[in-house]
Amino acid sequence: MDLKKVFEPKTMAVVGVSVTNPLNPGTVIFNKNHHEMQVKTIPVNLRGGSIEGKQIYPTVLDIPEEVDLAVIVVRADIVNSVLEDCGKAGIGGAIVISGGFAEMGNSGVELQKELVKIASEYDIALIGPNCMGVYSPPYVDTFFIPSERMLKPPPGNVAILSQSGGFIVDQFLSKYAERKIGVSAAVSIGNKAVVDETILMEYFLKDKRTKTVAMYLEGFRPGEGRRFLDVAAEFGGGKNIIVFRAGKTAGGQKAAMSHTSSIAASPRLASHIFRQYGIVEAENEQEIVSFAKVLSFKNKPIKNGDIAILTVSGGHGVVCADLVAKYGLNLVEFTQEEMREMKQLISPAAARIASLSNPIDLTGSAEDVDMERVLEYLLQIDRVEAVIILTFPYPPTISMQIGRRLSNIAGRYGKPVVAYVPWLLKYDIIIEGFEINNVPVAHTVEEAVQMIKALKMRRPMEQQ
Amino acid sequence: MDLKKVFEPKTMAVVGVSVTNPLNPGTVIFNKNHHEMQVKTIPVNLRGGSIEGKQIYPTVLDIPEEVDLAVIVVRADIVNSVLEDCGKAGIGGAIVISGGFAEMGNSGVELQKELVKIASEYDIALIGPNCMGVYSPPYVDTFFIPSERMLKPPPGNVAILSQSGGFIVDQFLSKYAERKIGVSAAVSIGNKAVVDETILMEYFLKDKRTKTVAMYLEGFRPGEGRRFLDVAAEFGGGKNIIVFRAGKTAGGQKAAMSHTSSIAASPRLASHIFRQYGIVEAENEQEIVSFAKVLSFKNKPIKNGDIAILTVSGGHGVVCADLVAKYGLNLVEFTQEEMREMKQLISPAAARIASLSNPIDLTGSAEDVDMERVLEYLLQIDRVEAVIILTFPYPPTISMQIGRRLSNIAGRYGKPVVAYVPWLLKYDIIIEGFEINNVPVAHTVEEAVQMIKALKMRRPMEQQ
Repeated sequence: MDLKKVFEPKTMAVVGVSVTNPLNPGTVIFNKNHHEMQVKTIPVNLRGGSIEGKQIYPTVLDIPEEVDLAVIVVRADIVNSVLEDCGKAGIGGAIVISGGFAEMGNSGVELQKELVKIASEYDIALIGPNCMGVYSPPYVDTFFIPSERMLKPPPGNVAILSQSGGFIVDQFLSKYAERKIGVSAAVSIGNKAVVDETILMEYFLKDKRTKTVAMYLEGFRPGEGRRFLDVAAEFGGGKNIIVFRAGKTAGGQKAAMSHTSSIAASPRLASHIFRQYGIVEAENEQEIVSFAKVLSFKNKPIKNGDIAILTVSGGHGVVCADLVAKYGLNLVEFTQEEMREMKQLISPAAARIASLSNPIDLTGSAEDVDMERVLEYLLQIDRVEAVIILTFPYPPTISMQIGRRLSNIAGRYGKPVVAYVPWLLKYDIIIEGFEINNVPVAHTVEEAVQMIKALKMRRPMEQQ
Repeated sequence: MDLKKVFEPKTMAVVGVSVTNPLNPGTVIFNKNHHEMQVKTIPVNLRGGSIEGKQIYPTVLDIPEEVDLAVIVVRADIVNSVLEDCGKAGIGGAIVISGGFAEMGNSGVELQKELVKIASEYDIALIGPNCMGVYSPPYVDTFFIPSERMLKPPPGNVAILSQSGGFIVDQFLSKYAERKIGVSAAVSIGNKAVVDETILMEYFLKDKRTKTVAMYLEGFRPGEGRRFLDVAAEFGGGKNIIVFRAGKTAGGQKAAMSHTSSIAASPRLASHIFRQYGIVEAENEQEIVSFAKVLSFKNKPIKNGDIAILTVSGGHGVVCADLVAKYGLNLVEFTQEEMREMKQLISPAAARIASLSNPIDLTGSAEDVDMERVLEYLLQIDRVEAVIILTFPYPPTISMQIGRRLSNIAGRYGKPVVAYVPWLLKYDIIIEGFEINNVPVAHTVEEAVQMIKALKMRRPMEQQ
C-alpha cells in the first residue's frame, strides 16, 4: 500500500459532490482542491451533471484517466460499494470522510469490517473512516472546512497526526500559523480502520520534508501501543516525536471512549515509557505548540536544564522564575564576581538599579547594548546551558532592532537561546529579528520555559 | 490626601522633559498626555526653553496656574527638592517615576524616608517612587512607553494594581485589549512609599467606574497583609477582588526579594486566607485574564461547579473534560432519558453519530439549530449550573450567526454560559454575537474552564 498516493496525489476523485448545496462537504472539498491545490480534481456523483464547468462522473469507474486518490463523502451504507469501485479502477489511495462505522457500534462495526476487507483486497491505502483526512500542501487538502474558515501555517518540517479533526484545525493549524511554525502535512486519522498512527508515523519519520512528528492521541487499542513504540525506536533517529495525550482524567477517559473508543494506559506508566523511547510528551495543549516550535529550530539538547533569565521587567523575571521551578528547570546561581563583572558591562543608569542575580533584571533604564553585553557574558559561562530572554520594547531606550542584535550574538555561541516577545503585530520586526538567527520566539513566558523543557527532554536515546 | 488629583487631574506638570532627546521618559510622558489625554500638560525643566511650542517652566513654582498632579522624572537625588517645590506650590498629587530609592538599599533608603516626610508634610498623594505611574483614561497616562509600543484596552470596569510595571503593560493591558476586557484604570505602585495597594484598593472599591480590582502582587511587607484583608472585607461588598501572586517558589521568592523587597507569606496559608475574605486568587497568569473577563460580565456565582460541555469537536470535548477535573469542577451525569430526549431534538444526520453524554459532541454533522436546541435543553436541567460551549465554525453547516443564536437562548435563562471560539479576526462576528448577550468568550479552552472556576470561587462572604 502506497501512502504517497494519499499525500502527493496527481489526480483525485471527490465522490459525493452536490450541484445544489454549496456547503455539502464533498462540494467544499472539490472547490478547495480545484482552485487552491496542485492535485487535479475530478467530481463524482451518481446523478452526473457538472460543477464549476467540469463534468461530474457517475462513478470512479467512468473516469477516463488514472486516479491516485479518492475522497469518499457519501452516506455510510454506500461507502463500501464506492470503495469496491475504487479498487476495480486501480485507485491506490482513499480517504473516507463519512462517519457511521465502528464508532456507532452494531451494524457500523460490520460495515467497517467490510471496508477493511475491500481495502486489503485491493491494497488501498485508506485513511478514516470518520475523519477529516489530510492537509498536505501544496498537493491536497481534504478538510471539509471552507478555506476562509481556516488558518493555514506556512510550509515547514512538522507533520501532525491527530485522533481529532477539530483539534488539528484549531490547536495545530491555527496556533502553528499564528506562531509561524511550518507544517509538512496534517492527518486526521478518524477510526484508523486501515492506516493508523503507527503507519503514518513511520511514513513521516522517513519523509524528507518532516523533522518532527506532533501527535494528538486519546489512547491506543490493545496491541497498538507496542508497535507504536517499536516504530518510534527503529525510525526515530534524528527526528522528534511529540505526543499529547487527552483523556487522562476519569471524565476525559469517558469522553475519549465515546469519541474514539480509545482506552488509555495508566497516565504515569505511559509517560514513563514514552520517555524511555525518546518520545517527548506534551503535558498540556500549550506544549504541543511550544515543543514543536523549538524543535523546528536548530538547537542542541541540554542536559540538566540549568538556565539564565535575562529581562528588563522585574515582574516577568519573578513569574518566569516560578515557571522554571514548575517545569523542573534550574536557575544557575551566579558568583559575586560574575555579578560584579556583569555590572561593569552595563551603562551607569542601568547599573545603578539593575539586579544581577538570576533572573537578571536590567530594568527600564537598560539600552540595547546592555542586553547584548550581558547576553554575551552569560553565553560564556559554562554552567549556563541555555538563556531565556524576556524582551520588552517598553523602555524607549530599547530599540526595535533588539531581536536582531541579540540573535546576532546568540548565533556566535552553540547554546540554545529562546526569547519571549509580547506577540503583537507591531513587534513583528523584533520577532523576525530573533528568528532569522535561529532564536525561537515564544507566545507567552510559559511557552518560553516549555521550550527549554523540550530541549532537556529531547535526548538521544543512547544518552538515557 | 486626595487620590482624585492623581487619577482625574485637570492639569499636570511633567518635571524632567528634555528638549534634545525625544526618547527621554519625561518627554515621552509629556507628548503622550499633551496629544492624547484630557489633562492639560505643562513641561518643567530647570533649563527652560520650549517643547512642542509650549513654554518650559524652570520649576513647578513658576507655573502661573493651579496644578493637580506632578509627574517627576529626574535623578533620584533631585527628586526630594522637586517634591518640596510641589508641596509649596500646593500640588496635591505626585507620581515619582525615578528609581534609586529604597530598592537600592543604603542611601536610597534614606532618600525615600525624606520623600515620605515631605509628602506627609504637604499631604501629597504620592505614587512610587520607582514605578510607571498611572494609566487612567481619558484623563492621564504616565507610563513612559511611547503609545505606538502599547496596546490599550477599551474603557471598562476593571481596575489594575501591580507591583510590576512591565507586567501591567504586557499581561494586563495587552492581553485585556486582545480579549476586549474594559479597564477603568491601571497603577504601577513601585516602592509604594506613600500610597500602597491597600489605599488604592480602597479607592477603587469606592470608585463608581470600577467593578473588579485585579492585582499583581509579589508579597506584603510586615503588617500590610492585615490591613489589606480588612479593607477587602469592609469595602469588598458587591465588587470582585482578583489577586495573582508571583514569587511562590524558592527561585521566584528570591527574585521578588530583589525586585520589590517583598516577603511572601506561605503560599498555602495566603491562599486559604484570601478565600476566607472573598478574594479570588488567580493561580497562574492566564487566570488574571480569564477571571477578570468573566467577572466583568453579569453572571451569578455558582455553588458546586456542576457543568455541561456542548461542542461539535469530540477532541475538544475530551481536552475540556480533563481541564474540568484539573480545575475542580464536575461534569453533570445525564440520565438515559435525558440523553434520549436530547437525541430527539437534533437533526437525523447529527443524531446518528452524536455523543450525548457529557461532554456532548454533536459532531461535524451538526447544524446551528441542533446546538440551539441542546443548549436550551441543558439550561432547563436543574443539576446543570453552567454551560461551556466549545464553538467551532468548521462544519460548513455551522453558520457565522452561531454566537448570536446561542446567546439569544442563553439570555432567556439565568444561568452562566461561557463560550470558547478560536480567537481569530475572521471569527469576530461569532465572538461579538456571544458577547452582545452577556456570554463571555474565552481565548482558549482552558480559559473557558477558568471562567467557570471564577464563578464558583466568587461567592458572597456570608455564604462561606
